[in-house]
Amino acid sequence: MSDPATVVVLGADGYLGWPTSLHLSARGYRVVAVDNLVRRRWDREGGTSSLVPIRSMAERVRTWAKAGGDPIEWRRLDIRDGEGVAALVRDTQPAAIVHFGEQRSAPFSMIDREHAVMTQLNNVAGTLNVLHAMRAFAPDCHLVKLGTMGEYGTPNIDIEEGFITIEHHGRTDTLPFPKLPGSFYHLSKVHDSHNIHFTCRVWGLRATDLNQGVVYGCSTPETSASPRLATRFDYDVVWGTVLNRFCVQAAVGQPLTVYGEGGQTRGFLDIRDTLECIRLSIENPPAAGEYRVFNQFTEQFSVLQLAELVRAARAEQGMDTLIEHLPNPRVESEQHYYNAKHQRLIDLGLQMHPLRSTLIDSMIATVESHRDKVDVASLQTPNVDWRTGALHTRTLLGLPQRRPQRKQTRRYEPEAVRPVA
Amino acid sequence: MSDPATVVVLGADGYLGWPTSLHLSARGYRVVAVDNLVRRRWDREGGTSSLVPIRSMAERVRTWAKAGGDPIEWRRLDIRDGEGVAALVRDTQPAAIVHFGEQRSAPFSMIDREHAVMTQLNNVAGTLNVLHAMRAFAPDCHLVKLGTMGEYGTPNIDIEEGFITIEHHGRTDTLPFPKLPGSFYHLSKVHDSHNIHFTCRVWGLRATDLNQGVVYGCSTPETSASPRLATRFDYDVVWGTVLNRFCVQAAVGQPLTVYGEGGQTRGFLDIRDTLECIRLSIENPPAAGEYRVFNQFTEQFSVLQLAELVRAARAEQGMDTLIEHLPNPRVESEQHYYNAKHQRLIDLGLQMHPLRSTLIDSMIATVESHRDKVDVASLQTPNVDWRTGALHTRTLLGLPQRRPQRKQTRRYEPEAVRPVA
Repeated sequence: MSDPATVVVLGADGYLGWPTSLHLSARGYRVVAVDNLVRRRWDREGGTSSLVPIRSMAERVRTWAKAGGDPIEWRRLDIRDGEGVAALVRDTQPAAIVHFGEQRSAPFSMIDREHAVMTQLNNVAGTLNVLHAMRAFAPDCHLVKLGTMGEYGTPNIDIEEGFITIEHHGRTDTLPFPKLPGSFYHLSKVHDSHNIHFTCRVWGLRATDLNQGVVYGCSTPETSASPRLATRFDYDVVWGTVLNRFCVQAAVGQPLTVYGEGGQTRGFLDIRDTLECIRLSIENPPAAGEYRVFNQFTEQFSVLQLAELVRAARAEQGMDTLIEHLPNPRVESEQHYYNAKHQRLIDLGLQMHPLRSTLIDSMIATVESHRDKVDVASLQTPNVDWRTGALHTRTLLGLPQRRPQRKQTRRYEPEAVRPVA
Repeated sequence: MSDPATVVVLGADGYLGWPTSLHLSARGYRVVAVDNLVRRRWDREGGTSSLVPIRSMAERVRTWAKAGGDPIEWRRLDIRDGEGVAALVRDTQPAAIVHFGEQRSAPFSMIDREHAVMTQLNNVAGTLNVLHAMRAFAPDCHLVKLGTMGEYGTPNIDIEEGFITIEHHGRTDTLPFPKLPGSFYHLSKVHDSHNIHFTCRVWGLRATDLNQGVVYGCSTPETSASPRLATRFDYDVVWGTVLNRFCVQAAVGQPLTVYGEGGQTRGFLDIRDTLECIRLSIENPPAAGEYRVFNQFTEQFSVLQLAELVRAARAEQGMDTLIEHLPNPRVESEQHYYNAKHQRLIDLGLQMHPLRSTLIDSMIATVESHRDKVDVASLQTPNVDWRTGALHTRTLLGLPQRRPQRKQTRRYEPEAVRPVA
C-alpha cells in the first residue's frame, strides 16, 4: 500500500478545522494541522470563550494519538507569512489543502475600521500566499477553500452553484454568479473567490470553493471519543451563530431573540455533514485548471423557523419557550425570496443529517452540562450594529465609545514589497 | 458667492491624478492634492522613469499658483494610514473624493507573490479607509473611484455598465455584472467595487465607480501651460500602456511589438476625456445610497488596430513602420467578442476626442523631444510573464532569479487590530 495522501488543514484550531483534522485522520489521511491560534487570543481580548472547554492543540493531538489515531502533525504558523506558507507546502507536498484559516465572524468585521481592514487583509493575504505556494511547490495540489453562502446575499433569482448561464442580447456565456455579500467578512470571501478563480484560469491550479451555510452542532464521532478532543461551542454576539444561541437561551430559560421579523432565510447544515462534504471534495478532485463551486448546506430555514423548531423541541420535553423580536442590528432583508441550489455534493454521495429535535435536544443537553459558564447577560443584547459599528457590543461590555481620531501606529509599510530591481 | 466646493484628489502625483487636480482647480474647485509619492520610489527601485520629466509636487503646486491658478493644497499622506485618512476627511470636508490612489500596474502585480499581495492589500486597505472616513466624517461626500474596464474581462456577452438584469427560471433581478479580471491588479479593483457597493447599500454612502479604459496622451490644456506642470509619460514594460509604447517604438524607428495575434480588444480614451468624465461625475452626483458604475472609455480598438493606426500616421509623414508579433506573456484571449456599453457619461454631456493621427503625431513629437532618454533595449523585451512571474523582467534587468524560500520579516501583525474589549 502506498503512503497515505497528505492533507494540510489551515485553521485547524477552529470550530470546524479541528473536527475536520480528526475526521480526515480517521479516514487514513496524513494530516498536517496548521493554525496561528489567533482565535484564542481574540477570545482573551474580547472576553468571549467557548462554552465547551477546549484543550491546547498539543494536548488535542496527544490525546488523539493515545486514543489510537494516526498521528496528526501540529504546526503553528500564521499564513500571512508568505515564506512560511511556501515552506509548509514545499515540505509537506500535500494532495489537498483544506483552508479554514480566516477571520470568520461577520459582526467582528463590522465593529470598526480596524476590524474591517484586518479581516479583509488577513483573509486575502492568507489565501494569496497559499495560491502562490501551490504554484511554486505543488501545482497539482487541490485547494479546498471554505467560502460562504453569504457571498451570494439574497438575490431575487435562484442561486446557482458558483456560475450562471446568462443569455443577453442574443448571446450566451456562463459567468461567475453575481455577489451581494452582507458584511466586510462576507466580502473578504468574495475577494478570495475571485482570486482563486483567476489562478485556476491563469496558472492551471485546481480548487473547490465550498460556499458553506451556517453550521450547527459540536459533536462528531471523533470529537466524542474524549472531552479532550472537543471542539468549540460559541454563542456570544460576535462568534456565535443563531442556532447555538437559541439552544443556550432555551437551556437557561430565556426567550429566543429573533432579529427583526425573522424571515431571513439561509442554508444550514450539521457539523457532521461539513466533514463529509470536505472528505467528498478531497476524494473527487477537480481537473487541473478547474475552479468549481459547491453550495455546502443541506436545508434552508428562516431565523423564525429555527426559533420555532427549538420551541417545539422544548415543548416535547414539556417546557414553554418564548420567542422575542428585537430590532435588527444588521442591514438585511427580513422577507425575501431564497432558493439556493445544493446538488453537487449530493451527487458526490453526501448522506445528509437533517435537523431533528433530537439534535436540538442534545445541543441543549451539552449547554446544560456547562450551565454555570453561560454569560446570561450577553444573551439579551443585540449584535454589533451594521450601521454604526461596535456601539451595542461596547455598551454591553461597559466600554467607552471609540474615538476615531486616535493616533495609531501603521502596521504595514510601503517597504513591504521588495523592488523589481 | 459661496465658497468653492472642496475636492480631495487621492493619488494626485500620478499620471492622471495630477492633470485632474489642475483641471478641477481651473474649474473653480478647491483642490486638496494627496499622495504618498510611492510611484516615484517604485521608479527609483525598478529603474524606470517618466520619459517626460516631472517636477516635485511642491514645485508643481508653486508653478500652478504663480501661473495664476487657484492654490492647490498639497498633502503627503499614505491612505493605508486609516487615522490619517480620517483626519483628512474630517478637516477638509470634501464634497467629492476622487480616488486614483492605488497601485495601478497589472504587470507589477504579476511579478511575484509579494507584488500580488502588496497590490491587493494596498488598494483594498486604502479604499476601506476612505469609506470608513466618509461614514464617520462626511457621509454626504461623493466618492469618485477609478476602477477599470479590465474588471469585466472579455465575456461572450455585451458588457453593461456595472449591473445586468438577469432573467432566470422565470424570475428577474438586476445584479452586479459578473467579473473576470485578468491580473491581481484588476482583481484588486473588483474587490474595491464590491466593498464600495456594500457601503452604499448599508451606510447610504454615494459613489461613482469609473470603469476606465486605457488612457493615452499626456497633454492637457492645464499641463501645457508650463513644462513644470507636465505629467508622467510611461512606456516601459511595467508602467507603460500599449499606445505609449507604440509611439516610442515608432519615434525611435523600431518595430511595433504586438503580443500574440493582437486581437485583444479594449476600450480606450484620450487623457482630456478622462478629466471631463471626472468633472461630469462630480457635477452630477448620485443620490445618497446610490452606487453607480460608468464605463469610462470612448472607442474600442484591438491591439493590432492600434499598431496599424500608428503605422498609418507614420506613413502620412512618409515613414515606414514594421509590426512584429511577439509571444504573448499574458494569459488572455487574443480573439474574442467585445462590446462594452459606454453611454452614461455621454448622456451627462461628454464631448469625446476620438483618436486621430494628429494626436498620434503629437505624442510621437513629444517622444522625439526626449529621444535621448529612451531606453531602447527595454522596448523589445516582453512584459512580465503571467504564468511564471517576473522572469522576463528580471532577465531584462540582469537580476538573479528570486528564491521563493528566502526568509522575510513579517510586515503586518495579528496585533494590528485593537480588541473588542
